[in-house]
Amino acid sequence: MDASSSATVDSAGEAAVLDAILRVLPEPSAQLLGPGDDAAVVAQPDGRVVVTTDLMVAGPDFRLAWSTGGDLGWKAAASNLADVAAMGAVPTALVVGLALPGDTAVGFVEDLARGLAEGCRAMAPGCGVVGGDLSVSDTLTIAVTAFGDLQGRAPVRRSGAGVGDTVALAGRAGRACEGLELLFRDGVDAQGVPDAARASRLRAERPEAILAQLRPEPPIVAGPVAARAGATAMMDVSDGLARDATRLAAASRVAIELDPALLGAFGGDIALVLRGGEDHALLACFPPGPLPEPFLPIGSVVDGRGVRVDGRAVGADSGWDPYRAWDGGRG
Amino acid sequence: MDASSSATVDSAGEAAVLDAILRVLPEPSAQLLGPGDDAAVVAQPDGRVVVTTDLMVAGPDFRLAWSTGGDLGWKAAASNLADVAAMGAVPTALVVGLALPGDTAVGFVEDLARGLAEGCRAMAPGCGVVGGDLSVSDTLTIAVTAFGDLQGRAPVRRSGAGVGDTVALAGRAGRACEGLELLFRDGVDAQGVPDAARASRLRAERPEAILAQLRPEPPIVAGPVAARAGATAMMDVSDGLARDATRLAAASRVAIELDPALLGAFGGDIALVLRGGEDHALLACFPPGPLPEPFLPIGSVVDGRGVRVDGRAVGADSGWDPYRAWDGGRG
Repeated sequence: MDASSSATVDSAGEAAVLDAILRVLPEPSAQLLGPGDDAAVVAQPDGRVVVTTDLMVAGPDFRLAWSTGGDLGWKAAASNLADVAAMGAVPTALVVGLALPGDTAVGFVEDLARGLAEGCRAMAPGCGVVGGDLSVSDTLTIAVTAFGDLQGRAPVRRSGAGVGDTVALAGRAGRACEGLELLFRDGVDAQGVPDAARASRLRAERPEAILAQLRPEPPIVAGPVAARAGATAMMDVSDGLARDATRLAAASRVAIELDPALLGAFGGDIALVLRGGEDHALLACFPPGPLPEPFLPIGSVVDGRGVRVDGRAVGADSGWDPYRAWDGGRG
Repeated sequence: MDASSSATVDSAGEAAVLDAILRVLPEPSAQLLGPGDDAAVVAQPDGRVVVTTDLMVAGPDFRLAWSTGGDLGWKAAASNLADVAAMGAVPTALVVGLALPGDTAVGFVEDLARGLAEGCRAMAPGCGVVGGDLSVSDTLTIAVTAFGDLQGRAPVRRSGAGVGDTVALAGRAGRACEGLELLFRDGVDAQGVPDAARASRLRAERPEAILAQLRPEPPIVAGPVAARAGATAMMDVSDGLARDATRLAAASRVAIELDPALLGAFGGDIALVLRGGEDHALLACFPPGPLPEPFLPIGSVVDGRGVRVDGRAVGADSGWDPYRAWDGGRG
């Protein structure tokens, strides 16, 4: 069966859509048995598997006027790979569930699959999609589950930070949030509705911020690097540095003191660096000593609770709660 | 944080909803690290992991007027566990993504989590939920990914059936389809819209068929049993026996001859047995000889292509295609 890219998924049918997707997906090196049977089989020579799952929903998580199919595939890969990397593991494989409105173009779905493949290739070579599911829905939804290999090491949890550790960050902070704020300000029409032409102009004018939001590139290889270097605690920054550092501090029963001069290395606007999530930077704590590349110091672990910048407490609730932060009226 | 069961998810917030869910989920025995970090860690002593993923979407896959939260959790577990079992593997763990409308009652979500837990306990003791994700959506969506352990055996694929093998079935066939047809006929109001009161009456009057549809109980333990007994090919019947047997025959490059007298053991209406999916029976082929319990013979593998009953070819397209079979206007 074959389907032209301009056909819709309901006119093409499940088999043709699946065929279009499978054509662009490379085979991950850990894949022992891929799509086509009831389940896939993935090599996990370590005897343990790291598992994380994430939903991306049209509306609260992305706008179709702003993101291409390729952007969505890339971002779905990035956010899941970052969770695997944050345990100190090497990503091995993904499975992807797609719930698509019947009038979705087959070409959009192909583009999404291509974005998944490109994201894996760029951020986690050898990792790829081993299976999935297609369903129909009024709301475009992307469900990714990612797997990782600990290579014999203990997982790096959020709870292991100790007083005296250096707090460090790998990747970007604040850029994805800046991109989102730009899109909500200038990527909408006069009624505040997301607008594809304006977003496209914005992408050309401010590529760094817009691409950080739509196609984030977390430093996936830094996760296993941190684990090998003895990281005591690690997590990915998805809901904002202030909020996520507060979580890490709470799990480890310590306080984190952030240095504004060091945060400045991640961007001029420190407030943006603190509240910005979705860059999926890796936040990690290390015993005193030299930091492994590409980690940069941002502060230290001290006695107490919570997060402080320059001695002042930073609120944890400046971040993202899907049930509270989404204003459906905004687009 | 705590939330009363009558609160909605948007008033309660993510942390309270998560807390309500985690309270009712037992810890799977293979769980090395559970919810609360960036990813979970699951033991896979075999060095391979069996992986399957499935989306359940309000509308095409279920109706909220017909299913309770507990039904949906149970069914999400059942359909994924069946895919793991169909490879001959023992289910070890699930991850679950929930995309919920903001006005969903927290009690509904608790009930869904309880259904997941009960389904695992009944069908795959020791298996349970190790992680998940919460998101907000206009369309209630349940994304489950399930894992399984092959215990050192080769996976049982669809492609291994050989001429002379016995074709056998474990579980039910046709009952879930009968239940769905009853619900579409008598579980709707005069305008054809799904109606909770009528569905509830129907459940009391015709429990066998309605529960087969809303809370299917696939014979999960029969999967590893078949593998140990030397099954040459296996799959779970989710889209109809005629359609799925055609897929197995095509993958194995053989024909399947079904015996109507033997199909009769699964219900009086053989047409229903042939077109009915969603019972998630296990369809398997075995070399000649006694069959392991609970498999019953339904036919044999012969030279050729396709599926025949009493010598007559059975169409493969009597089953379910999500993009073609869903009539959104029906409720």
